[in-house]
Amino acid sequence: MIHKMNNSVEIITIGDELLIGQVIDTNSAWMGEKLNENGFCVKQITSIPDDKSHILTAIANAFNNADVILITGGLGPTKDDITKKSLCEFFNTELIFDEASYDNVKKFIRNRPQNMDNELNRQQAMVPKSCTPILNKEGTAPILWFERINKILVSLPGVPHEMECAMTDEILPRLKDFFECPSRQQITMIVYGYGESALALKISDWENQLPNGLKLAYLPQSNYVKLRLSGESEDQESLKESLDREVNKLTAILGKSILAYEDIEPEKILTNILKEKKLTISTAESCTGGTIASLLAKHPGSSSFYKGSVVSYCNEVKHNILGVKSETLETVGAVSQDTVEQMAKGVCQLLNTDIGISVSGIAGPDGGTDELPVGTIWIAVANHETVVSKRLQLGTSRSENINKATIEAIFLAKEFAENKN
Amino acid sequence: MIHKMNNSVEIITIGDELLIGQVIDTNSAWMGEKLNENGFCVKQITSIPDDKSHILTAIANAFNNADVILITGGLGPTKDDITKKSLCEFFNTELIFDEASYDNVKKFIRNRPQNMDNELNRQQAMVPKSCTPILNKEGTAPILWFERINKILVSLPGVPHEMECAMTDEILPRLKDFFECPSRQQITMIVYGYGESALALKISDWENQLPNGLKLAYLPQSNYVKLRLSGESEDQESLKESLDREVNKLTAILGKSILAYEDIEPEKILTNILKEKKLTISTAESCTGGTIASLLAKHPGSSSFYKGSVVSYCNEVKHNILGVKSETLETVGAVSQDTVEQMAKGVCQLLNTDIGISVSGIAGPDGGTDELPVGTIWIAVANHETVVSKRLQLGTSRSENINKATIEAIFLAKEFAENKN
Repeated sequence: MIHKMNNSVEIITIGDELLIGQVIDTNSAWMGEKLNENGFCVKQITSIPDDKSHILTAIANAFNNADVILITGGLGPTKDDITKKSLCEFFNTELIFDEASYDNVKKFIRNRPQNMDNELNRQQAMVPKSCTPILNKEGTAPILWFERINKILVSLPGVPHEMECAMTDEILPRLKDFFECPSRQQITMIVYGYGESALALKISDWENQLPNGLKLAYLPQSNYVKLRLSGESEDQESLKESLDREVNKLTAILGKSILAYEDIEPEKILTNILKEKKLTISTAESCTGGTIASLLAKHPGSSSFYKGSVVSYCNEVKHNILGVKSETLETVGAVSQDTVEQMAKGVCQLLNTDIGISVSGIAGPDGGTDELPVGTIWIAVANHETVVSKRLQLGTSRSENINKATIEAIFLAKEFAENKN
Repeated sequence: MIHKMNNSVEIITIGDELLIGQVIDTNSAWMGEKLNENGFCVKQITSIPDDKSHILTAIANAFNNADVILITGGLGPTKDDITKKSLCEFFNTELIFDEASYDNVKKFIRNRPQNMDNELNRQQAMVPKSCTPILNKEGTAPILWFERINKILVSLPGVPHEMECAMTDEILPRLKDFFECPSRQQITMIVYGYGESALALKISDWENQLPNGLKLAYLPQSNYVKLRLSGESEDQESLKESLDREVNKLTAILGKSILAYEDIEPEKILTNILKEKKLTISTAESCTGGTIASLLAKHPGSSSFYKGSVVSYCNEVKHNILGVKSETLETVGAVSQDTVEQMAKGVCQLLNTDIGISVSGIAGPDGGTDELPVGTIWIAVANHETVVSKRLQLGTSRSENINKATIEAIFLAKEFAENKN
């Protein structure tokens, strides 16, 4: 890792719940990724309890080792949230009432009458005198920005969407104004069809000839691999050319296995094609239980291509609503090519969409047989003329099976939308 | 958090991937939970890069602050894995070849001939002379146990299942032999209907009279609060009595607002009642797009109560499949009490279930009007006789709106299942 003196960061996450494992710290990873993309270098992540002396020690150490200290958590109004008090002690200042923060608090409690004006809501609007308070657009706790001898400390809420909104809209732009960051460029590619080691083997010659200054990172996901090619340089132009050149070489090797040249979710790869080709889609899900549907509906503007779904968790619904033949269910059963293909065609007709996706399988942990062990999952994609299907043999973890089948079905639909429509 | 001198732990996780957000550190949370259950107190979790000087500093600091140091990561055979070298430098010792570790490596390589590379395998079997190597039952990297002036340092692999197996079978039992641990107990309660501040205010008298040794923690979730009451004592019996006594007092104050007395997901609170009352359920979802469905299907055995769902993302589906009246959609519109109630009744009849849940609203960021701003979401729950509904006024974050509406609908269904069925 390159440690630049002028942009090193330490993240401090505060909360007993992190140390007893009741909450997994996802904030640090999110912040680390964004900071890295913006040319900052996270040198350490430190998780500590809601304990004032421990907080003070951690902040003091961080100021010795980093130029930016980002703190999350402990900003709530309750007794166990002591970050603000600790910051006042560290910066030798006091809490003062901030009108703007109070207006912001009122905005959020308006819809919760039982929470109306109380002492704790006033406490939320108290901020350390020596900091610059920044409004929290997603919650009541103000964000606290401290400057001290060319170093920055920011105290952020621990609630992920509040932290993420503040980082994106306020903190990252301000940090980039404050520090000089080396210009960094990166291209992330979504590669499907290779495990991490098989991919590494396949592209080793290319990887070995990468010019100095370009760095390749493997980010294995549940059933695809993200490849991130990144570089730093003062010369933006030549860096871009060099990145493009290497990406073209890699495309010559991997071809269609590269599903996307940006860091996007699998469903976005599909929905971008649906939008481009003006196609509508629906899903008929059994063991994935609506997971594909929820991903299609997750992003803004999805109503332009997504019309709806039928989750047929029992055979009754597969037959009555989706029109899967009783004979099929009785003879080959619900987890079969016939059933899943009838489901895909059925939902396509029922909801009158251009494409229908279907899934039926045994997610586990129970319900497996010798012929159909846990992890046997059929997926299909159909339009009004044709249907394609695929049998997956996954593992024994229910959540992993649901997750993997979802992504496999989305990638199958992506290929189908490209070719058949 | 109570810090006992004889059982404080620091966890150090090593790896560049943790600091640039490629990997979320789930190991620490898992270890924190197990250590806490076994009476150990995790004082700090520190994530650092694969950087020898940084590793040495982190270990030195940890020895000053904790009695047990658990390190994960950086034990692989590749050149960027330098934990073992760093440990040799810290403990002023050298790497020696360990026959037992080598036999263990060979055991794992046997099934992977393509991985036959004796030099790397021999490196895996090299261990610091001054440590006690412990066999890794799940992988090739040996676990390294160091003792130093009544303190313990253990170096574990970063691969979760390898680390978890070693912790469970070897490290936790050895640590409990080495240290005296106080017994710890805790009860987590799911509280609905109060914001964090309102709840803190409501129960402040009770909180202030809590006996010494009992500690209360607030864990605010998106639209409910987890309350965790925990304590430590030599006397298990009296600790349990004391916890039960305080929980009873709290129940007298909060009554039905306590939805559960264990740390479980919202949907589990509902599905436990469905199982107990032998009720079946279905959902008709618009803006939540199948999220409720996916949660109902997420847990093993859900087919006993969950039959299916219709995601009616467009009005066409609301009318054609769920039977929402055209007049309703034309006059009051899709986001209305009438529509959502017809959706709930409709899916209940269509899929022949005891209970139907429905949601229709404007998740945002676009699509809002003056009368129906973004965040306006109607939810309903019906059986074949009756229906209840509720209007939510949420925020502007699409993901948060979908998430909150999902949980509100699940809690409404929980109440409905308790009372109406």
